[in-house]
Amino acid sequence: MDVSETLLPGINADVNAAACPSRVMLEHITSRWGVLVLAVLLEGTHRFSELRRRVSGVSEKMLAQTLQTLERDGLVRREAYPVIPPRVEYSLTPLGEGAARQVWALARWVEGHAPDIAAAREEYDTLKARS
Amino acid sequence: MDVSETLLPGINADVNAAACPSRVMLEHITSRWGVLVLAVLLEGTHRFSELRRRVSGVSEKMLAQTLQTLERDGLVRREAYPVIPPRVEYSLTPLGEGAARQVWALARWVEGHAPDIAAAREEYDTLKARS
Repeated sequence: MDVSETLLPGINADVNAAACPSRVMLEHITSRWGVLVLAVLLEGTHRFSELRRRVSGVSEKMLAQTLQTLERDGLVRREAYPVIPPRVEYSLTPLGEGAARQVWALARWVEGHAPDIAAAREEYDTLKARS
Repeated sequence: MDVSETLLPGINADVNAAACPSRVMLEHITSRWGVLVLAVLLEGTHRFSELRRRVSGVSEKMLAQTLQTLERDGLVRREAYPVIPPRVEYSLTPLGEGAARQVWALARWVEGHAPDIAAAREEYDTLKARS
């Protein structure tokens, strides 16, 4: 374990502190694919190929990397079944469920307010073009 | 305005769709510095230099770029006062407050669960080293 990943006992985590390990943990959860994968897994267990279909645009390599990072952080559980063809399923751990609820809410907020954001951009660009 | 930023009327936003503009909006809010800046602004108006101090590790260039992106998305308001020396203040718009509440909750969740994540990593690394 890298020393930069060690939390000092008795010292509260602070994502605003560059050296605090919690910042990297936050970065994993808010990573481009991490957010989407966690939110999809909140709906239930998924196989690798199902996840790839649900999270459109993710490459096989990036999805595998994202899942491994989330697994190491204790958020995702990987279960491989010794069948032919091999079946690998991904689900949230109880800890991951907590994280997923947060990003799920954020994703739904963005979807619900996408028209407002689009309108704000249009106004911003119009003002910039005039000045 | 880029055509990829246009929301089709009557079609719901979907962050899981690679071509949906809401995905890029989500990426702005969950960007490395976007998350931290929004969460800090939920505490109140900040000057540029104050933000730089609060969000440790951010460069001047990255902070300026992050704020501009959030301003264009209608989440952050930039107010420049014609005084000497010039004073520029950043605050959340009502829309930005909604986004900031989400990422604030996420940041606090991560800080609160950082010891659990650190423990999970240690276990993962130990198991990997053994296999």
